[in-house]
Amino acid sequence: MTVFAYVKVHLSFEGTHYAGWQRQPNALTVQEVVEDVLQTIYRQKISVKACGRTDAGVHAHNFVIAFPIPHERIPISKLPHALNAYFPEDIRAHAAKTVPKTFHATADVVKKTYRYTICNRSFPAVFGRQYCLYIPKSLDVAVMHTAASFFVGKHDFTSFCAESERYGSCERHIMACDVYEQEQWITISVTANGFLYNMVRIIVGTLIAVGQRKYVPTDIKDMLRARNRKQAGPTAPAKGLALYEVEYK
Amino acid sequence: MTVFAYVKVHLSFEGTHYAGWQRQPNALTVQEVVEDVLQTIYRQKISVKACGRTDAGVHAHNFVIAFPIPHERIPISKLPHALNAYFPEDIRAHAAKTVPKTFHATADVVKKTYRYTICNRSFPAVFGRQYCLYIPKSLDVAVMHTAASFFVGKHDFTSFCAESERYGSCERHIMACDVYEQEQWITISVTANGFLYNMVRIIVGTLIAVGQRKYVPTDIKDMLRARNRKQAGPTAPAKGLALYEVEYK
Repeated sequence: MTVFAYVKVHLSFEGTHYAGWQRQPNALTVQEVVEDVLQTIYRQKISVKACGRTDAGVHAHNFVIAFPIPHERIPISKLPHALNAYFPEDIRAHAAKTVPKTFHATADVVKKTYRYTICNRSFPAVFGRQYCLYIPKSLDVAVMHTAASFFVGKHDFTSFCAESERYGSCERHIMACDVYEQEQWITISVTANGFLYNMVRIIVGTLIAVGQRKYVPTDIKDMLRARNRKQAGPTAPAKGLALYEVEYK
Repeated sequence: MTVFAYVKVHLSFEGTHYAGWQRQPNALTVQEVVEDVLQTIYRQKISVKACGRTDAGVHAHNFVIAFPIPHERIPISKLPHALNAYFPEDIRAHAAKTVPKTFHATADVVKKTYRYTICNRSFPAVFGRQYCLYIPKSLDVAVMHTAASFFVGKHDFTSFCAESERYGSCERHIMACDVYEQEQWITISVTANGFLYNMVRIIVGTLIAVGQRKYVPTDIKDMLRARNRKQAGPTAPAKGLALYEVEYK
């Protein structure tokens, strides 16, 4: 393929009906839909790099992809519009710009922020129900907030990782981990330089268990020290999780 | 039926998959689902009165219904929970209390507030797309806000009513009509003592036309004076509309 330019595009998607971002042989993924639409638009195969993978059912408000384009017959500024004309309504492009050839959508990420949404009241949500976890019993948000602070810093997150044997090192740097509540909706926000497999969902599952008083906040320190998945709390369901922001160097 | 008590229940529902509130012979309505669930719970037919009708596709955050119950084997405080166990996920009960026999769910309403949501930016929403109207071209919110103020007060709303011949009088009192914007989401809020058929949707359609500079704000005065549906703007689609609050005497 002749490369005219490299472009970076920001996507939002609802993960409900997809087996995550990454292409898979027997399940529909966001990558497959995006690459199929690019092939329709450019009439050739274009392979897309992304800021990361998302698990099945996880949403994204700002998912960054990058790919080469063979010509500029579609001006870059019109590319989101062209993509949206073909995307299903649960995937949308909202910005596009050219990037240098050296731009690497995965490796150049310096931090990412995920948000997890919990509807915590006596009846489930109608509006936004697809993007939250419903927990009817009242959680103690104050202790969750304290517990969250113990995740901040550079730690070995082996206890908060599924399949840690995949990784050479499980050390990651969490820059921020916050829990806040507004009208019975609880948001857990986690910013890090990188995330291990299921890391946010295990952090969230553990914070929920703290909110249910199954652990005390300082237990987080022991869990981190243990470097053993069995010492941490359960993995929270995917549907409450959304990638919010991706920052590049 | 032996009546043990009369109860008032607050519902939320997403209107997308329903032909409105009111029971119809050949279409699924919210009333039908609610009455079917009540019949399952109480093992007898219970007919429900409501704070009003909603059009097909219109949502509700707070829709009030009232009905007699034959016994108290389900404590009133547990009734929302019992209903939610049978409701589909796009209908939820969130509060129940007993009311005097004289309570009339429709006639006792003193005011209602509807909100209309517009996503006004260059790309459509992924999250909340079911509950908004997407308008890509930028609307002039300042002129919409000015125009909205001309609806406030007691007016004959014949120009803003479909099938005005249904009504003895088309006079209604709009207590508040506001337009506000937050991060490219525009909300139009209308509070009145009562609404004619399609009244909010025609007001919204007209305000959108003002925002598109097809009318100037003072044209609203002439439209009201004309008492002629053809003088007002188009009817906005149902999907952006939601009943927000109902107030009783």
